[in-house]
Amino acid sequence: MRRTPLPPALPTTDRTRHRRLREQGSGERAALDAILAAGFVCHLGVVVDGIPMVVPTVYGSDGTELYLHGSVASRSLAASPGSTVCVTVTHIDGLVLARSVFEHGVNYRSAMVYGVPRPVTDPEEKLAGLRCLTAQCAPGQWGYARVPDRKELAATALLALSLEEASVKIRTGPPDDGTSGPDADRPVWAGTLPLTTAFGTLEADPALREGTAPPPHLLALEGGRVG
Amino acid sequence: MRRTPLPPALPTTDRTRHRRLREQGSGERAALDAILAAGFVCHLGVVVDGIPMVVPTVYGSDGTELYLHGSVASRSLAASPGSTVCVTVTHIDGLVLARSVFEHGVNYRSAMVYGVPRPVTDPEEKLAGLRCLTAQCAPGQWGYARVPDRKELAATALLALSLEEASVKIRTGPPDDGTSGPDADRPVWAGTLPLTTAFGTLEADPALREGTAPPPHLLALEGGRVG
Repeated sequence: MRRTPLPPALPTTDRTRHRRLREQGSGERAALDAILAAGFVCHLGVVVDGIPMVVPTVYGSDGTELYLHGSVASRSLAASPGSTVCVTVTHIDGLVLARSVFEHGVNYRSAMVYGVPRPVTDPEEKLAGLRCLTAQCAPGQWGYARVPDRKELAATALLALSLEEASVKIRTGPPDDGTSGPDADRPVWAGTLPLTTAFGTLEADPALREGTAPPPHLLALEGGRVG
Repeated sequence: MRRTPLPPALPTTDRTRHRRLREQGSGERAALDAILAAGFVCHLGVVVDGIPMVVPTVYGSDGTELYLHGSVASRSLAASPGSTVCVTVTHIDGLVLARSVFEHGVNYRSAMVYGVPRPVTDPEEKLAGLRCLTAQCAPGQWGYARVPDRKELAATALLALSLEEASVKIRTGPPDDGTSGPDADRPVWAGTLPLTTAFGTLEADPALREGTAPPPHLLALEGGRVG
């Protein structure tokens, strides 16, 4: 794993430069970290035979690298080593309901990370990466559930993607057509409709042995917000 | 717009064939339609200078085509005409908490659509496409809010992507390690933790003229589930 701390400002490269809606871009690494920390599902973009392929997958982030895993047989992971991928994490915060259709939109926080993933092959580092990934997706489960054995570890492909090259876009707040312009006085209700994602209540596996109670770390997740 | 109904079975192409986890694939067009109807945000994958770019954006679907829009200056939309894109729509339904970390996962419904988008340039068709997109993202707002004028229409790029080539993956239910295998009797709680996304309560724009009440079609969205 990388141990060098990354600079607090996100870099501006040809890929991460905000060409439009500049006001929505954030150059703060803290904004990136917050977006990555708030979720556990990303969309991984790879190029397979010249064609883009966008695959939803879980991730873990340790602040300097983002971990992705999958079967060693996976097409999307197999395509990744040696070539640049794009990983996008998006949280949708609500609808922006404006006075004109043109000004409609969504409030959101989104991060895009570009880079050439590094295959993690060292067994110890692989375990550490999977632990990081599990901590993000199912906190507390590492060590409560049985950790991967040697065979499972060999069947799992793990990729580490540096967080060096990333961009962030955020939109918050009410619509933009209420303070000036031809629609400001239009007699149309305008505002936002928040959207939230949250965990519900644990549902036991019907095959669960009787008398097995959920551990505190899982009960603590109930009702919690994601995103 | 395409008026020929699409066949009820999804096609199997080299890109949409399920190579792994075959049991999670669905070949039903109805499954695709349901996934697309349940949301309004997708991740658009395009190739820009050989690099994949994954951009979150809203969409509308009329059952035969999927509409995407954006500024005419947008890089991701500019890259699309003439080359294949991948549009992925994902709904995360919960965590799958197994007896072993290896069997952990998520319940989800995901659709991937591949194709070469068709730029919609005819003003009337463009209006119809934007109306479809608005109906999906902000139902009832078309005609309540002011519809796009000629200048706004010209500033909006609209792409139509055929739903012909698409694949669907779905995972539901409890973890897989409870009925057989070495972990079935492990004294570990196992099950699922559902995740839901829902609208909250309308929040008025601070710039809203006093006395303007939200219309019934917006009040009807409050508390509604997405995904």
